[in-house]
Amino acid sequence: MRALRLVAWHHDPEFAELPVPDPGPGQVLVRVGGAGVCHSDLHLLHDFPPGLLDWPVPFTLGHENAGWVHAVGAGVDLEPGLPVAVYGPWGCGTCRTCATGAENYCASVPGNWTVAGLGADGGMAEYLLVPSARFLVPLPDGLSPAEAAPLTDAALTPYHAIAKARSVLTPGATAVVIGIGGLGHLAVQILRATTDSEIIAVDTKPEALELAKTCGADHLVHASACAEDAVRNLTRGAGAAAVLDLVGSDATLSIAARSVAKGGQILIVGLGGGVLPVSLLGTPYGVSVTPTYWGTRPELHEVLRLAARGDLRAEVRTWPLSRATDAYAAVAAGTVPGRAVVVPG
Amino acid sequence: MRALRLVAWHHDPEFAELPVPDPGPGQVLVRVGGAGVCHSDLHLLHDFPPGLLDWPVPFTLGHENAGWVHAVGAGVDLEPGLPVAVYGPWGCGTCRTCATGAENYCASVPGNWTVAGLGADGGMAEYLLVPSARFLVPLPDGLSPAEAAPLTDAALTPYHAIAKARSVLTPGATAVVIGIGGLGHLAVQILRATTDSEIIAVDTKPEALELAKTCGADHLVHASACAEDAVRNLTRGAGAAAVLDLVGSDATLSIAARSVAKGGQILIVGLGGGVLPVSLLGTPYGVSVTPTYWGTRPELHEVLRLAARGDLRAEVRTWPLSRATDAYAAVAAGTVPGRAVVVPG
Amino acid sequence: MRALRLVAWHHDPEFAELPVPDPGPGQVLVRVGGAGVCHSDLHLLHDFPPGLLDWPVPFTLGHENAGWVHAVGAGVDLEPGLPVAVYGPWGCGTCRTCATGAENYCASVPGNWTVAGLGADGGMAEYLLVPSARFLVPLPDGLSPAEAAPLTDAALTPYHAIAKARSVLTPGATAVVIGIGGLGHLAVQILRATTDSEIIAVDTKPEALELAKTCGADHLVHASACAEDAVRNLTRGAGAAAVLDLVGSDATLSIAARSVAKGGQILIVGLGGGVLPVSLLGTPYGVSVTPTYWGTRPELHEVLRLAARGDLRAEVRTWPLSRATDAYAAVAAGTVPGRAVVVPG
Amino acid sequence: MRALRLVAWHHDPEFAELPVPDPGPGQVLVRVGGAGVCHSDLHLLHDFPPGLLDWPVPFTLGHENAGWVHAVGAGVDLEPGLPVAVYGPWGCGTCRTCATGAENYCASVPGNWTVAGLGADGGMAEYLLVPSARFLVPLPDGLSPAEAAPLTDAALTPYHAIAKARSVLTPGATAVVIGIGGLGHLAVQILRATTDSEIIAVDTKPEALELAKTCGADHLVHASACAEDAVRNLTRGAGAAAVLDLVGSDATLSIAARSVAKGGQILIVGLGGGVLPVSLLGTPYGVSVTPTYWGTRPELHEVLRLAARGDLRAEVRTWPLSRATDAYAAVAAGTVPGRAVVVPG
Repeated sequence: MRALRLVAWHHDPEFAELPVPDPGPGQVLVRVGGAGVCHSDLHLLHDFPPGLLDWPVPFTLGHENAGWVHAVGAGVDLEPGLPVAVYGPWGCGTCRTCATGAENYCASVPGNWTVAGLGADGGMAEYLLVPSARFLVPLPDGLSPAEAAPLTDAALTPYHAIAKARSVLTPGATAVVIGIGGLGHLAVQILRATTDSEIIAVDTKPEALELAKTCGADHLVHASACAEDAVRNLTRGAGAAAVLDLVGSDATLSIAARSVAKGGQILIVGLGGGVLPVSLLGTPYGVSVTPTYWGTRPELHEVLRLAARGDLRAEVRTWPLSRATDAYAAVAAGTVPGRAVVVPG
Repeated sequence: MRALRLVAWHHDPEFAELPVPDPGPGQVLVRVGGAGVCHSDLHLLHDFPPGLLDWPVPFTLGHENAGWVHAVGAGVDLEPGLPVAVYGPWGCGTCRTCATGAENYCASVPGNWTVAGLGADGGMAEYLLVPSARFLVPLPDGLSPAEAAPLTDAALTPYHAIAKARSVLTPGATAVVIGIGGLGHLAVQILRATTDSEIIAVDTKPEALELAKTCGADHLVHASACAEDAVRNLTRGAGAAAVLDLVGSDATLSIAARSVAKGGQILIVGLGGGVLPVSLLGTPYGVSVTPTYWGTRPELHEVLRLAARGDLRAEVRTWPLSRATDAYAAVAAGTVPGRAVVVPG
Repeated sequence: MRALRLVAWHHDPEFAELPVPDPGPGQVLVRVGGAGVCHSDLHLLHDFPPGLLDWPVPFTLGHENAGWVHAVGAGVDLEPGLPVAVYGPWGCGTCRTCATGAENYCASVPGNWTVAGLGADGGMAEYLLVPSARFLVPLPDGLSPAEAAPLTDAALTPYHAIAKARSVLTPGATAVVIGIGGLGHLAVQILRATTDSEIIAVDTKPEALELAKTCGADHLVHASACAEDAVRNLTRGAGAAAVLDLVGSDATLSIAARSVAKGGQILIVGLGGGVLPVSLLGTPYGVSVTPTYWGTRPELHEVLRLAARGDLRAEVRTWPLSRATDAYAAVAAGTVPGRAVVVPG
Repeated sequence: MRALRLVAWHHDPEFAELPVPDPGPGQVLVRVGGAGVCHSDLHLLHDFPPGLLDWPVPFTLGHENAGWVHAVGAGVDLEPGLPVAVYGPWGCGTCRTCATGAENYCASVPGNWTVAGLGADGGMAEYLLVPSARFLVPLPDGLSPAEAAPLTDAALTPYHAIAKARSVLTPGATAVVIGIGGLGHLAVQILRATTDSEIIAVDTKPEALELAKTCGADHLVHASACAEDAVRNLTRGAGAAAVLDLVGSDATLSIAARSVAKGGQILIVGLGGGVLPVSLLGTPYGVSVTPTYWGTRPELHEVLRLAARGDLRAEVRTWPLSRATDAYAAVAAGTVPGRAVVVPG
């Protein structure tokens, strides 16, 4: 089968021909129906210092996946043809943390362990081998694999961050979303559907802000040195109960730190390489700063239900697998509003 | 292998000779190191109307199990010899509820589904077949299977109930434990180790109250019509923030209802067949009444850690498998302080 | 000043002429801008057995109040003219429970203590004496006292019940609201604005169900013996994660008990006099049954913010104080869709 | 009356003679029975750059206070002679945050507002004027004002930090306490009494570690460059679920950052002036870093109940008011194990 692979660090991805994997006991072979192109793939391919990640190279890209059960290994009771989303952060499944469903924080794997598309073979191929049936969530009616694929990361990741802040997002509290791209436009929708918070979208691009408005943002703020003043004004001086930084640069983290209210939360989601200095007298009292990673298994169920209800919709543009490199190029060029999805077959 | 089985409703259990099961893909064969005798088995054997439970008969008894990994099916990566506790309420493993680890409330199985010792073959045998590695929790250092076995139910069940009430069990709040038997003496220890609540133990038997004291109860109250007055006095009129009823008869539920404080919680754990009428003007405002069932997967990890730290200890009396019927008889006669455990081999 | 009063049990209310109260130290005199007519007033006036409540008679009716600060006692720093909502369940303010803002469950007052309109003089008058500034919440911009008044009870009460169930109301989970009257139509809006749950409205009257639809209900079910079957069908057999019973009769509680999912919650809010029998084998495992009362201080802030954002709107029909008896008659006749509010002056 | 005052920045405190305050409406005059000497007072007196805090000078020191109600203003219903602890962070009392009891994060006051002993007159005097009865918590039986005074800050502050981390402090999880002084020895006791976590105490001084052991710590680690290795070893590589840094220097924050587990929490409590850089790839995934401030009103109730049960005891050394300067000198010299308390009269 055809597969798009990371073949070397600081190198463009390349196609390769691979054998179709055979599912062993407990494993499931998924026919890929959609594989999302994530900005983090670009960092992975071109920006990270070689050696930062000790992943074996080459491997097939694609960590946002959905499709249909194609074949099952011994001991798996799943109907071929069942449409499924693939949960990405594969933990050990048995430690206390995994038992709660938070395999994204599995205590038994190292910090950056290998999962599909990130060190191990991912979904930019006709078939994807999934090591356990517990990583598959059946798609609710009305949601196609191509629609579901980007939700497994681009929606699950902000959903998880928002879940951490949910206790402070009481009606009328303010949520700031910095960076209205693939994750950000979904973050706004999640906030709109599951809270009654006042949503402020922050970005540098007018069209991104326009997208935020369509998704339900109440206020649009240009990301500049005085963005925090705008947030302070809109909150009558109090600041925002939660700030989601989906960019994560020094500049945006600085906006976050100066926009947040006492007792509020800053969630760092974006891989922008920034650092936020936290201190007792330099940070508002009671503010929690949390770098989050992906999401939990029950949260993926919830994300898919949100989407099936029509309250969460990724703006998706699709490419056939044969043109997957074009999809990456388009994302790199910043010309894809919402999310690029590669659809094999 | 030898196994003690429920062979018919309203009938004493009998021994049978069964083949040693062969673990299929994903399954694990556990050599049993301890199988607890639970009061609910007595209800099961003798009290329930035939037909109440649609379980196939016969089946091997024993739903509180621990032992050592003996053989694994294809796809399972566990070392033979590893000491493990067996998580009992086997859910589907993939629904949203199971993904949170609360397989005891699995949305995909019927109310009283068949699990080991309850409709399916349990641990009163030399070997126990466990359908998935996720139901095994490695024992922490210093905890033997015979000690761990009763904890998988007799400790996990009250631990789960206490977890539900944890938010109201702030320091100095009062917790009432009704019924100081196999579960109750563990409930008192769990409260002592994980909260700073004032603990009131209620029972009819002086020796049970004495055991409660040893386990850390602050006050002992005889279970009579005026037990609630004693609770009211000890709480300066306010009532208890949480009441665990491990008996569950009409009489004890009535004590619970009249002992609880506004905004408190009543947890019904005991299979005593009682009914508690709840109403807006007849129940203190804000009181939650919850019948609970067993516990969650992460909670079993926590229970075992409590025990490994020495802060939770089941009073255990052991019988060899060949004398398992004597163990049941002793439990039925009420002559076992703490918990009876059958130890094969 | 004029005031409408409960003058005797099982008797229609009557007008009386009273002196304008003088605010003592710490107290606030509020000029009433709206006083809601609550169904519970009808139970109070006509249905309860005399002696059930040990309240001194007569007293002025009206426990859903909003208005403007008119005069303040010594030590109070509030601007006359400030529009405010009045928090109703006045606790001691200093016990641990009150310190959390849950004065509705104050540990220091008896079960049915006297507050404005319920044993003490309420808001069906030109002025209302409030014993402490902490019971006043400034109205957010764009919300008038007449609009705010019914929210202090008819919205706060279901908001509080929903808050208790919030942890199970994940996206796609089902919430059932039984009884779409003054409280019910607000419950539906609160669920719509603050959760992404699937909302099923249950009532006997087609126009009530129609109102529920306008408020955001996804499904409408006629309240009959087979209402629970409809809920089971709509939830693919699983049942509802939360059931709010705003009627509280034996019939509706029975629907609630048979509609709820394992691990779900039943909130009893309606004063219909019903009783729900709870037991370990007769109630789905893990279901909490909770009679709730009114709401907390922070929740009133949240309710007002919801309304100010336009996401919560009581259907209000107003009467001048001089015609307050007509308002009560209309509510008794069931001819008021939404909420009746008396507006003095 | 006599009072010890901060008279100028970077200056030793001095005694002054002041008139006994007269309680206005709603206010309470407390006869001081104990005023704790806090390390933060030393920072205040000598270390902070003048102008950092815009407090009016001079003012009476002492922000950890307890005593007896002496006289009440109009509208206050408290018995003279009642022993009380004084809640320190006086918020507005009416905003949503204050309504929850978290006046330490009041939305209506500036970051470093003036409260007793911190910009306003505190308890290092014979009498203390408290602006509202809601700031007084009656002492449970068996707790004297001299014992209670330091608990209002030195215990409440770590109690609040621990409360934030409570959800991760499941049985067997590890808590690290860095800095075993006035706050630290109480933090260890609070963890011991309210959790079953494994407690690791970290300090440079052997006698501090010895004190930690007495208070219930399981493991003692010398605070050096390899302290984090010790924590990693003790947790079998996983790291600590919660780290309380009661020192807050760059060095200790670095230990915290390298000792914490994925999904864990770092609570910054100490005023050591350090800064912790937080970033997505430099901090373990899911770790929350939170600078906390003092505690909430309900938490003060809980702290006092803990102490009344005998499970929390400040090591206290007392000085008469006339020798309060000696108490400050002893604290500055580091010769007071536990807490120094000034006892007037």
